[in-house]
Amino acid sequence: MPDLQGVLDEIAAEMAVQTDRGAVADYIPELATVDPNRFGIAVALVDGRVLSAGDAQDIFSIQSISKVFTLTLALGKVGDGLWRRVGREPSGNPFNSIVQLEYEAAVPRNPFINAGAIVVADTLLAGYQPREAIGEILRFVQFLADDDSIVIDHMVAASERATGFRNVALANYMKSFGNLDHAPELALGVYFHHCAIAMNCCQLALAGRFLADRGRSAGGHSVVSAERARRISALMLTCGHYDGSGDFAFRVGIPAKSGVGGGILGTVPGVGSVAVWSPGLNRQGNSQLGMLALEKLARVMNWSVFGS
Amino acid sequence: MPDLQGVLDEIAAEMAVQTDRGAVADYIPELATVDPNRFGIAVALVDGRVLSAGDAQDIFSIQSISKVFTLTLALGKVGDGLWRRVGREPSGNPFNSIVQLEYEAAVPRNPFINAGAIVVADTLLAGYQPREAIGEILRFVQFLADDDSIVIDHMVAASERATGFRNVALANYMKSFGNLDHAPELALGVYFHHCAIAMNCCQLALAGRFLADRGRSAGGHSVVSAERARRISALMLTCGHYDGSGDFAFRVGIPAKSGVGGGILGTVPGVGSVAVWSPGLNRQGNSQLGMLALEKLARVMNWSVFGS
Amino acid sequence: MPDLQGVLDEIAAEMAVQTDRGAVADYIPELATVDPNRFGIAVALVDGRVLSAGDAQDIFSIQSISKVFTLTLALGKVGDGLWRRVGREPSGNPFNSIVQLEYEAAVPRNPFINAGAIVVADTLLAGYQPREAIGEILRFVQFLADDDSIVIDHMVAASERATGFRNVALANYMKSFGNLDHAPELALGVYFHHCAIAMNCCQLALAGRFLADRGRSAGGHSVVSAERARRISALMLTCGHYDGSGDFAFRVGIPAKSGVGGGILGTVPGVGSVAVWSPGLNRQGNSQLGMLALEKLARVMNWSVFGS
Amino acid sequence: MPDLQGVLDEIAAEMAVQTDRGAVADYIPELATVDPNRFGIAVALVDGRVLSAGDAQDIFSIQSISKVFTLTLALGKVGDGLWRRVGREPSGNPFNSIVQLEYEAAVPRNPFINAGAIVVADTLLAGYQPREAIGEILRFVQFLADDDSIVIDHMVAASERATGFRNVALANYMKSFGNLDHAPELALGVYFHHCAIAMNCCQLALAGRFLADRGRSAGGHSVVSAERARRISALMLTCGHYDGSGDFAFRVGIPAKSGVGGGILGTVPGVGSVAVWSPGLNRQGNSQLGMLALEKLARVMNWSVFGS
Repeated sequence: MPDLQGVLDEIAAEMAVQTDRGAVADYIPELATVDPNRFGIAVALVDGRVLSAGDAQDIFSIQSISKVFTLTLALGKVGDGLWRRVGREPSGNPFNSIVQLEYEAAVPRNPFINAGAIVVADTLLAGYQPREAIGEILRFVQFLADDDSIVIDHMVAASERATGFRNVALANYMKSFGNLDHAPELALGVYFHHCAIAMNCCQLALAGRFLADRGRSAGGHSVVSAERARRISALMLTCGHYDGSGDFAFRVGIPAKSGVGGGILGTVPGVGSVAVWSPGLNRQGNSQLGMLALEKLARVMNWSVFGS
Repeated sequence: MPDLQGVLDEIAAEMAVQTDRGAVADYIPELATVDPNRFGIAVALVDGRVLSAGDAQDIFSIQSISKVFTLTLALGKVGDGLWRRVGREPSGNPFNSIVQLEYEAAVPRNPFINAGAIVVADTLLAGYQPREAIGEILRFVQFLADDDSIVIDHMVAASERATGFRNVALANYMKSFGNLDHAPELALGVYFHHCAIAMNCCQLALAGRFLADRGRSAGGHSVVSAERARRISALMLTCGHYDGSGDFAFRVGIPAKSGVGGGILGTVPGVGSVAVWSPGLNRQGNSQLGMLALEKLARVMNWSVFGS
Repeated sequence: MPDLQGVLDEIAAEMAVQTDRGAVADYIPELATVDPNRFGIAVALVDGRVLSAGDAQDIFSIQSISKVFTLTLALGKVGDGLWRRVGREPSGNPFNSIVQLEYEAAVPRNPFINAGAIVVADTLLAGYQPREAIGEILRFVQFLADDDSIVIDHMVAASERATGFRNVALANYMKSFGNLDHAPELALGVYFHHCAIAMNCCQLALAGRFLADRGRSAGGHSVVSAERARRISALMLTCGHYDGSGDFAFRVGIPAKSGVGGGILGTVPGVGSVAVWSPGLNRQGNSQLGMLALEKLARVMNWSVFGS
Repeated sequence: MPDLQGVLDEIAAEMAVQTDRGAVADYIPELATVDPNRFGIAVALVDGRVLSAGDAQDIFSIQSISKVFTLTLALGKVGDGLWRRVGREPSGNPFNSIVQLEYEAAVPRNPFINAGAIVVADTLLAGYQPREAIGEILRFVQFLADDDSIVIDHMVAASERATGFRNVALANYMKSFGNLDHAPELALGVYFHHCAIAMNCCQLALAGRFLADRGRSAGGHSVVSAERARRISALMLTCGHYDGSGDFAFRVGIPAKSGVGGGILGTVPGVGSVAVWSPGLNRQGNSQLGMLALEKLARVMNWSVFGS
């Protein structure tokens, strides 16, 4: 195995001089102010080590990466019954498409498109007030990363709530078909808040390490079964990058989930988890440099799940 | 590693007594007559061994599995330029959908849906008569499997040509957008013939072994680079089972490609390739018992690419 | 010209004994309680006479018929600039489809589908509070019918607001594309209230008489130009019955607009307007007996715009 | 009534100096060579007079206008049973859309979109060889116009057959769903030939006069019932101009059918029929000057069906 720290340093140095960095998401005003020149990367190995390079201590909004954690939580709560309300297939459409919902009677294609994640949020409301459900999600992420300092950025949540008309549309549309148990604004409240969880690369890699380690968390606890960790990883590979999932699998070959804040969380089964962050996005809404960095990392370290 | 031969025998025995075997494809008359009670499985390991169980010597129509071989051949011929005419994303639609073509100006989503494979066939016609292109494909499959006895079942090709109105529609539709270089009936002729290649499980596993062995064929030749083998495997995982690709990745976790003849070809990177066959199909058009068998095989052998 | 009163009486008698009366709309709880056995019909001739038969004095919820009045009001307010934000083409989709919006960047196909009417309501908010805009619409309808007793049924408006998730989805979706100037809930407030205007057949026929009389209202006032009256009539013919507009034109041949409350308002250019009401709906969401009655009326009176 | 000949002359003079004339259809090579500066107009009154102006004696390809005649013929042959295989609703999509077919199981929305007209052509093949069916259509048009000199331009038919891949796609797609009784190429043969009927404005107006005269042809024969003439006119109004049908009804208000050759046939119930021709097309594929001319004619003559 090549010298991982050296590889990370080299990648960070390379990314620092990239000029084509993509465009920072501007549809959430609070995110539009982020400095596009940042780049961070961190790896949490199953042996317990955490290596990093670049701006790996900078806090960013994890946005849709949080869907990995809410899905894990919801599967623990309602089990495979979840799959009656949300599918497991790639969407073949941009991440906020409402067309697919209409043709498939409001059952979202997978839990990583917005509509699917809103359904997942709805299941987490069972027996809880929104505030409690949000608290539970945050504590779960803190538990996974073994780090109580992780918080929700309420400015981002408020910004998203004030401008997230399309998500309001999706939620009300599903409600009209009976695929939400709670009021759309409650499910959306949970959704907007978990998307606003703020972490740095090291925390994020640690939080996602259970996927690479047969379901065991950074703190050594068994979070899910090895089979469930594999299955969540499979969903990340087929559905983790919206309309660019196929291309990501083709080029990188690591199960991963991106967010419009510019973060990507990947898992290398049996080896460790990796988190990258760079705010500029490509056309599919995934971090441009993040994807480039992971492509290089996978190639140099032989970390593609499709072989060396 | 558990005793592989024992595992295969056990799977074959289990499948023999399954009562819910799916439905044999009836839209190609020539395929509708196949005995639904057959089941075969074969594994071609990178160390050279071939193990099998059940009806692994029975010849069947590989149908869409052939798209793996034509894609490999086309990439060798035109390289990454192919991706200007066909995408790399899961389709999110049934395998013969024409809707996606209309919204995306006749660029098929990936090379494994019918429209994409017809484009691939069109590229293989460059500089050739249809008969020559078909011959080249057959010889390539023979070369991959190191077996000159593999043939095309011309009755199946004729049957498909006589009834394949939807494929004729797809080809003409793409031609109207300029995404076929040759006459639609020529590209379709190549397509119908390569789908009619007839093989048994052992031959099929051997033909696909290059995917698991860094691009090296059963006969020891380097067919493609290790990177291309990984990339083709990635496409199989994200797009190999039509509208059931996500579910297959979720449950089985092995890159694989299915055909309506009831075969499935899978690859376990660094370990070997596996071919299963059982004619009954599930609702997504994939072999019902084939998928069940691979699910069990992956679990028992720890062959999921998403971890043990 | 046959004896019109006799024809109306005969139609009312025929409709009274019909057994297949369609299904009362149940998605708005407040409407679901209406007696399906009612049938009323009224004609307001341009010479000033009003003839009626059956339950023509019964008050019902005019629902989408109100879109004719808000369109007229909005054209008076913003003129042809309205057509930059809403189209003039039949939708080819059920009345609440969101698919069309997605493919056409949130410009609704015409002002009579729900999305289009919400845009029209949004234009009526310019410079007004919702309460004022609603008051203006009501006063306009009272003015058209020359009848101050017409009211809004606030129970129906509240019922629709509480359950109209799909309309909330449509409004938020258009807002996300920038095709609403005001907050979605404000435009929806106006929309839900004008749909809840309650009238009887005589009042409704009088309110719509301006369409048949070159733009002159029941009270003798010039409301719109003759050209605008023709154009609104054209929209009613091509778009007035959702996904059943073509069939209505084919069978009846009178420009008309229906509502899920079971009412239909039609216009016979140069002759007069006609209002029918029967709560049971056919598969396209149009009054079953209302359509039957108009088909007979048009045939007997030679009132089809497509010739005698 | 204003002086009709004077009005026609004035319109022809106005159109002669128009500079924005649209674009001549170029997807059928044989049509692309037509001189864009031509403009002709003719009116066939129910009293027997025929008035014309401009290039009203120039022969042009009537293209989709022929669908009015084949629909009339098919209704005479199979009656209302036709409506089980083709709908009566506006399409809400461009004229050659295949999407609608997929979502509605290959039942075309109406007989005036290409798919619908191919189904109509298929019904005309019952009991006939293609050549005989084509002959029957031509003789029917000759009979309607009372003019044996009308012919089919076989160069245009051949040109369309050689390049009409999208129509081949539509036909094969419907065949795959069982909505064609004959081989796709036979139905297409009939379709391409009836689209290639060549006429001048005077002949075309005469051929369509039965629609305005309660079903009575130019030669005085009863072709269809008055009711059927009304119903065909209704279809022309709601579906006669592809995706621009609503706009045409809104602006012109005359039931009419256009063709990509630049012709439009309209009917003014009880008054007469009108044919215009100018080869340049607008964005929706309808004659740009033809529509303008009809808009003026309808306004000046008070010929809108929606009132004076």
